[in-house]
Amino acid sequence: MDPAALAALQTRFGEQLSTAHAVREAHARDESRMDYHLPDAVLHVQSEQDVVDALRIAGEYLFPIVPFSVGSSLEGQVIPVRGGLTLNLLGMNRVLAIEPGGFQATVQPGVTYPELNRQARRHGLFFPVDPGAEASLGGMASTNASGTGAVKYGTTRDNVLEMRVALPGGRVVRVGSKARKTSAGYDLKNLFIGAEGTLGVITELTVRLWPLPAEVVVLRCNFGTVAEAAACAVTVMGAALQPERLELIDEHEIHAVNVQLERDYPERPTLWIELASPSRAALEESLSVCSDLCRDAGGQDLAVATSAEERAAVWEARHKAYSSMVAMYPGHVNLSTDVCVPLHRLPAVVAATRAKCDERGLNASFVGHVGDGNFHVLFHAAPDDRATWDAIHATYDEMMTLTLAAGGTCSGEHGIGLHKQKYLAQERADTLELMREVKALFDPQGLLNPGKIF
Amino acid sequence: MDPAALAALQTRFGEQLSTAHAVREAHARDESRMDYHLPDAVLHVQSEQDVVDALRIAGEYLFPIVPFSVGSSLEGQVIPVRGGLTLNLLGMNRVLAIEPGGFQATVQPGVTYPELNRQARRHGLFFPVDPGAEASLGGMASTNASGTGAVKYGTTRDNVLEMRVALPGGRVVRVGSKARKTSAGYDLKNLFIGAEGTLGVITELTVRLWPLPAEVVVLRCNFGTVAEAAACAVTVMGAALQPERLELIDEHEIHAVNVQLERDYPERPTLWIELASPSRAALEESLSVCSDLCRDAGGQDLAVATSAEERAAVWEARHKAYSSMVAMYPGHVNLSTDVCVPLHRLPAVVAATRAKCDERGLNASFVGHVGDGNFHVLFHAAPDDRATWDAIHATYDEMMTLTLAAGGTCSGEHGIGLHKQKYLAQERADTLELMREVKALFDPQGLLNPGKIF
Repeated sequence: MDPAALAALQTRFGEQLSTAHAVREAHARDESRMDYHLPDAVLHVQSEQDVVDALRIAGEYLFPIVPFSVGSSLEGQVIPVRGGLTLNLLGMNRVLAIEPGGFQATVQPGVTYPELNRQARRHGLFFPVDPGAEASLGGMASTNASGTGAVKYGTTRDNVLEMRVALPGGRVVRVGSKARKTSAGYDLKNLFIGAEGTLGVITELTVRLWPLPAEVVVLRCNFGTVAEAAACAVTVMGAALQPERLELIDEHEIHAVNVQLERDYPERPTLWIELASPSRAALEESLSVCSDLCRDAGGQDLAVATSAEERAAVWEARHKAYSSMVAMYPGHVNLSTDVCVPLHRLPAVVAATRAKCDERGLNASFVGHVGDGNFHVLFHAAPDDRATWDAIHATYDEMMTLTLAAGGTCSGEHGIGLHKQKYLAQERADTLELMREVKALFDPQGLLNPGKIF
Repeated sequence: MDPAALAALQTRFGEQLSTAHAVREAHARDESRMDYHLPDAVLHVQSEQDVVDALRIAGEYLFPIVPFSVGSSLEGQVIPVRGGLTLNLLGMNRVLAIEPGGFQATVQPGVTYPELNRQARRHGLFFPVDPGAEASLGGMASTNASGTGAVKYGTTRDNVLEMRVALPGGRVVRVGSKARKTSAGYDLKNLFIGAEGTLGVITELTVRLWPLPAEVVVLRCNFGTVAEAAACAVTVMGAALQPERLELIDEHEIHAVNVQLERDYPERPTLWIELASPSRAALEESLSVCSDLCRDAGGQDLAVATSAEERAAVWEARHKAYSSMVAMYPGHVNLSTDVCVPLHRLPAVVAATRAKCDERGLNASFVGHVGDGNFHVLFHAAPDDRATWDAIHATYDEMMTLTLAAGGTCSGEHGIGLHKQKYLAQERADTLELMREVKALFDPQGLLNPGKIF
């Protein structure tokens, strides 16, 4: 970064600005651990005005701006590959308002979804999008993150009503509406959601909250293969039971969870299905129907988690499956895929992907938000194990071919970042140029999170 | 239109093209009946290729293109105010595929939602967005239409997975994904949804289908005032009963329905609440909770419609409320508002709007998708009754001030078209210019449905 730019930032921001190596180092990676690049400086923003002023100065001195909160992105989104200024948004961590009667909350972008849930709970409400990793709402909107709740409640996109976004040059606009629906003009809100910080910096979000379900139970069911489990998930979705969560986790991930979290789950491909109803009687009925469907689909060892503690333990295991797998192979680099296909194509795509992994002898594990048709294959290998990495990338390529042939997408919830640009170009051959034109319209100088998506 | 342009169209399309006055006349109005303008010619397109070629010829000869299916828009969207070529899409009326296991259907834009439902029903599925008036899917996507089902299932936006869109010059792009969720690149799909045909012509849609609910009942409940009924709706929404539909209809509209459809509903402000459950027992429980909430909120004369016929009769009445009101005042011109506010602000905004109408002695009726915070005031007067129209517009202006102060939007589901441009400019003062820039990017020659939205 130009020394004059740094001086201008220092003049405006004083001690909020840091160029200390340790601070820059803390903003050089994300959860994927594959890439590394230091920002030139880190700004701890405290307010929308800070963001506005940083964008204004960036526009004058032409340096990149990269928004960063908890750094839980999985595709390198927050890594400042072209240097510049990283905006650390964690200081903007206030829940500004909760409107229980309107089922909505207004938050700053650095608020994490667990923190929002802690505050919403006293009103009998919750925010249903749970990507794990204590993600921030601003980051979740930027990648259109989802998680286990999406099968019932939709993704971040579906749960953001309105946002304030700071644009290059420092102008702030309001997009979307606090009303639950709107048909007023072009939908700019959804353009910023999933844009990975390349079109603007989100400075405030109004999100939907939902009533906490009254009666809840989690059914666990084991299967012979991941494809059988996926097929059962499709059947459950067809039964109008509207599960709260419908998760696949394979034997490798269960093993890792057992080891890392000291659990004793049967180490087989498993579905975890959460059901909820307004009353106990209704819940028992749904559970009975769902259990029958699982048994008919070849499910075994059905077990039910009823108490809040038991259920929390299940979802802790699910949310920590990724980190548990990572912990099993210290020193290895991990690569998580994120394809999503139409539900009726899921069992075949899962089966074919598993077969490709087995053919190559890859130690790959599967988890999935299978009620949405979304699953992740976690590959790992030593960084210098070229042969295994070649096999991984060849398998990933084949998996993408299967996915696109099935009408699916290369990313269900993680976004594109640095790692999926090749697959985005495949999937979006006909609109990639249009996306670039939109980028040029919103950010003509290319200052916002450059090098991502495209 | 330039005679050379007409000749080029005639050469390419032969008898699909019509310049007969009666045909042009049939494409000069929409459901709002307020405006009138003849297209220069009407093209009965049969295929995406027809649309592509029409756009190509329009790009050469620079004439406007206006998409039209059933003409049920309420804000003048399909009226060719600058002449040019109207594309009648009703010939593109095929349901191309229904994928029951994927809960999706792919349709041409001229398919109406009742026709899609007729075909989906045999698979135990339905498409939940029901704006009334036998609307087409292409038109519904273009205005982000909704209706009674949105409170549970979302709007057209939420139920369109993927679209093919023909752009100016004739290029066709695929936006969105057949997968249920995607985080792959910028969300161009939602830019075309609600764009009212000003950015591209939708040539194909893949939409979500949902399992038909098993057990269904409609509760009717009367109130002293529309504000009381709206307040009850907010309470019901807070009880996690997830109603299928939650509709307000006032005494004037009930009277019109009684007269026009020969019904005998009590002529008082009424809520119609549809509840569904997987089992009869669960439904009885929800109904009991809901009935108690209604009585606590001052509701009276509770009545329950259980059989499919009884329920269909209720929703026929709701869907024909608008046309019944219109039929009550032959020769009058009608104006329907469409504001949507955060739910907790709804009772106050409804009460204040009613008070403003009463102050001015306006014969205005209220209906609303109140579970979404969306309500319509239907004004009417003789076309030459200047005093009443002045009072109507003054009331509308005040209602918009109330709506914007409550964080609401000028359009919940009808769009902007010709009639709400003033209110869009108020609501979107900070992004209107950005919207214009998006328009210029997608349609630099300004050929697509010119004069709408802006």
